[in-house]
Amino acid sequence: MYLSDIASPSDVKALDLHELPVLCQELREALIESSAAVGGHVGPNLGVVELSVALHRVFDSPRDKIVFDVSHQTYAHKALTGRAQAFLDPARYADVSGFSNPLESEHDLFAMGHTSTSIGLAAGMAKARDLAGDDYDVIAVIGDGSLSGGLAFESLDSAAAGGNGFIIVVNDNDQSIAENHGGLYANLAELRATAGQASCSFFRSLGLDYRYLEAGNDVLALIDALSELRGCERPVVLHIHTRKGLGFAPAEQDPEAWHHVGPFDPATGEKRASAATGPDYAELTATHLLPRMQCDRSIVAITAATPYIMGFTPERRASAGEQFVDVGIAEEHAVTYASALAVAGAKPVLGVYGTFLQRAYDELWHDLCLNNAPATILVYGSSIFGTTDQTHLGYFDISMLGNMPGLRYLAPTSEKEFLAMLDWSLDQRTCPVAIRVPVLGDPTSCELTVDASYGVPSYQVARTGSDVAIFALGDFFALGERLTLELARTANIHATLVNPRFVTELDRDFLTNIARTHRLVVTIEDGVLEGGWGEKVARFLGPLGARVRCYGVHVGFPDRYDPRELLAENGMTVEAMAEDTMRLLEEIQ
Amino acid sequence: MYLSDIASPSDVKALDLHELPVLCQELREALIESSAAVGGHVGPNLGVVELSVALHRVFDSPRDKIVFDVSHQTYAHKALTGRAQAFLDPARYADVSGFSNPLESEHDLFAMGHTSTSIGLAAGMAKARDLAGDDYDVIAVIGDGSLSGGLAFESLDSAAAGGNGFIIVVNDNDQSIAENHGGLYANLAELRATAGQASCSFFRSLGLDYRYLEAGNDVLALIDALSELRGCERPVVLHIHTRKGLGFAPAEQDPEAWHHVGPFDPATGEKRASAATGPDYAELTATHLLPRMQCDRSIVAITAATPYIMGFTPERRASAGEQFVDVGIAEEHAVTYASALAVAGAKPVLGVYGTFLQRAYDELWHDLCLNNAPATILVYGSSIFGTTDQTHLGYFDISMLGNMPGLRYLAPTSEKEFLAMLDWSLDQRTCPVAIRVPVLGDPTSCELTVDASYGVPSYQVARTGSDVAIFALGDFFALGERLTLELARTANIHATLVNPRFVTELDRDFLTNIARTHRLVVTIEDGVLEGGWGEKVARFLGPLGARVRCYGVHVGFPDRYDPRELLAENGMTVEAMAEDTMRLLEEIQ
Repeated sequence: MYLSDIASPSDVKALDLHELPVLCQELREALIESSAAVGGHVGPNLGVVELSVALHRVFDSPRDKIVFDVSHQTYAHKALTGRAQAFLDPARYADVSGFSNPLESEHDLFAMGHTSTSIGLAAGMAKARDLAGDDYDVIAVIGDGSLSGGLAFESLDSAAAGGNGFIIVVNDNDQSIAENHGGLYANLAELRATAGQASCSFFRSLGLDYRYLEAGNDVLALIDALSELRGCERPVVLHIHTRKGLGFAPAEQDPEAWHHVGPFDPATGEKRASAATGPDYAELTATHLLPRMQCDRSIVAITAATPYIMGFTPERRASAGEQFVDVGIAEEHAVTYASALAVAGAKPVLGVYGTFLQRAYDELWHDLCLNNAPATILVYGSSIFGTTDQTHLGYFDISMLGNMPGLRYLAPTSEKEFLAMLDWSLDQRTCPVAIRVPVLGDPTSCELTVDASYGVPSYQVARTGSDVAIFALGDFFALGERLTLELARTANIHATLVNPRFVTELDRDFLTNIARTHRLVVTIEDGVLEGGWGEKVARFLGPLGARVRCYGVHVGFPDRYDPRELLAENGMTVEAMAEDTMRLLEEIQ
Repeated sequence: MYLSDIASPSDVKALDLHELPVLCQELREALIESSAAVGGHVGPNLGVVELSVALHRVFDSPRDKIVFDVSHQTYAHKALTGRAQAFLDPARYADVSGFSNPLESEHDLFAMGHTSTSIGLAAGMAKARDLAGDDYDVIAVIGDGSLSGGLAFESLDSAAAGGNGFIIVVNDNDQSIAENHGGLYANLAELRATAGQASCSFFRSLGLDYRYLEAGNDVLALIDALSELRGCERPVVLHIHTRKGLGFAPAEQDPEAWHHVGPFDPATGEKRASAATGPDYAELTATHLLPRMQCDRSIVAITAATPYIMGFTPERRASAGEQFVDVGIAEEHAVTYASALAVAGAKPVLGVYGTFLQRAYDELWHDLCLNNAPATILVYGSSIFGTTDQTHLGYFDISMLGNMPGLRYLAPTSEKEFLAMLDWSLDQRTCPVAIRVPVLGDPTSCELTVDASYGVPSYQVARTGSDVAIFALGDFFALGERLTLELARTANIHATLVNPRFVTELDRDFLTNIARTHRLVVTIEDGVLEGGWGEKVARFLGPLGARVRCYGVHVGFPDRYDPRELLAENGMTVEAMAEDTMRLLEEIQ
């Protein structure tokens, strides 16, 4: 076996050319075996095995700089840069992150997991090189799906001014996470069909040199093509045609389903059942929306390349027809487009991961909110219990959306409340609405009635008590309830428990009354403290009598953390919160 | 005169064709006269007079939907849609906003002022039309400069799927605010040079039909071209060549200087001196940076199409050479590019308006902060005393940047402090730094020492007192000082006055000590309360003894407001704050 002996890229260079296809086959098997055990981005990684080997054969990383877009396709790159055992030894599968990470290796130049960044990052590196009078090559690798993101375009447009030794490899597998969307993809198809000879080329139109290689999974052909580009005099695009999931039949046949998967049987591709983790809000969304869409042609479900998060399987997309729009990886356009749909009388519902919605901050502020467009945005994965990779932290959404002027951001505590809020939002025409879709879905024993209207900010009392009032937002309502029970059990303190429901707006009368009748107010939220919901409560109550204690986690970039440990570090176990509450109550007396 | 009789677009349709050039001439004169009196976007508006007349001649607004990008070029459109007197009668010059505004007219479809939005908005309108079974035309108007923005690309890429009656007019005057930057502009030049016949076309590469019209300032030619496109079966780009500033020689000769101007003499173009408004931080930035850049080739000043905000005149840009980069309207790329420059060892300084930095929220979070890239971002115009158009409110920056993990956001109170912070940031390699460049620049009589290091969050005591501690951030330090003096004068209360300096991080020991020794803490900031700096202080002090009162303005979209009135509405006059403080102190006793 060659792979186990690859300690650095120089070992790739030491092999004979005819040994490289064997190395590729070993890599492919190692990626399938390791992903089968722990899950991962199977399809993207299998498609770029040969490219990764060729890059490390031709260029001298880390002197030459290789920047992978999204970086969820860097498994082979990692295995070739001193981390092979993390893909060969089951005991070490967890050694490496699923993304590029400079703390792991000098060959990983940036921490990244959002799309469309590689060209801009490479351009910056090339500029720094030129200013320093250095002469290494800089290579950006970007997938066809990522090209629809506005950032990638801005950087491509700038790249023409990028000097020499600047190579952009477009890894074209004719697939985004789902299928591609956008006029650009017809041009890529034409370029593939004409082996790059089509007279009209997106890349040439941006002033870039352009080469095409059909054999994107042929390591020797890739080595030839890349070798020719070393030290190129002008920025150049090398457009290669690869096959997503190559070498694993199930992934080749259904690239959408195999973009990212949990553990599976490497022999058959059968996915291993994962432990149930509460209600399935993706299913809930689609099964609730589809019947409404059938009765109301003005409802349009929109995704930016992640239809599955809102339960829109290929079958459901087909059934929704014109009322389902996938704009591709283009969160900015998605929000602006939804804003105009709402202003023009339609009822857009955009489903999006909170971490990716960050791309559209200005469009939320300037197109959606400034125009008071009554669109509905469903924010998924926004929880400490969401994705735990530092690149995809979803729990910064409240500081992003909670302070948007004119937005109503709602935080349901249960499936029933989520659907009531969604229905209300679809039926109203007064303001933009975002809904924080629960992730944890912990059950509660409180009987919370569900309102038909969320037109006026009003908090809901779940238990009436005294001394201390516990405001537990959305997904963490159940945690607030556990704290209430713990205080009653251990200290005979009977707290008031509140479901605040509204993230953006305060129920001022309610809070004023609480400050008069309670000595301590506790806020609990499933997000960051800084800029979060609790701070709004603390600011409002600041001049009044009651003291306030806010629970949330501090801003930072924890990576592959254990959510319960992160909560514990931030004093958010039930026991720690109960103790803290009792201490504060004693202090105040 | 025709213009004074134009009450609606139907009056444009009622004129004979040969009268239209006369109407255009009248419009041009009215725009020059009115802009000379009150200032405005002279260049952009003069370039699209004929286009505006042609659009209202050919299409039936508001049934047909015309969406202007940025919308600072809608003066002629406004004059043709019932608002002519706002450009003819000096007493009514202030009747209309400088931007599209639905509250003014049903012909203004959206409130907007940021670039690159029109295609996405038009796409949403076209989709809503199709779902409703309607058949009007939707027209997006976008300038060449705005095409470099990623949002415009995302929307163009999506437009190919946009159905019929969807027309995108590209108003190409070969100029952004400053000169254009990006490979795209060579393609536009080639298209102009070949009258649209170049085989490689950016627009065709995105699957769009394409027409070219050289005579972009010929109203009759425009009418012919637009008439042919009514009800087009596929989305189409009409690329027209116009001249920015046409009809006013000074604006034609120096389109950068005449993009937006204050009052001027319409006969000579001589600009009227404006009242001095404190220190000129643009000049200060450039004159401080340039000598440092000459000694240190690793410093790169970066702008996204607004070099003037950091004092980089054409001469200074030339003198900076390779160390000055204008990426064009591309804030996202600017931040990602700067992040990589910093990671690679260079010292990027990105100067940007706070309102436009919103476009790069995710790039700040994911590229800059996650990678702990020691770049410097200078945030301009972020003040209640900045631009007062609702589209360009700059005082939301603290809720945007103040909660970014790992960023150090500094708020200087004076020129000296600004330069000290800038120097410190350029010399450190530990974290990304943003500096909130003062706008108001009110002087203070406090003698604040300026530190050489801002490596550890530490607040600065300007006056030591008791009972109440006033924390006055950045540009509003002088306001805090006035409150301190007022309390001493009227109530013999001698407050502690603090210059907090650090927006993102709390000086926890300082605050803990203040809570022990003072009964009331007051925070004052030049920004929104929600998600702002004061809320962080209120949250931190919430469990401790001292009460907290935060001053700032509530989120919202005030338009063309008087800053002092806005402050008064938010209880932020010195008198109101003093009274409130005294009342609170009495309550606590």
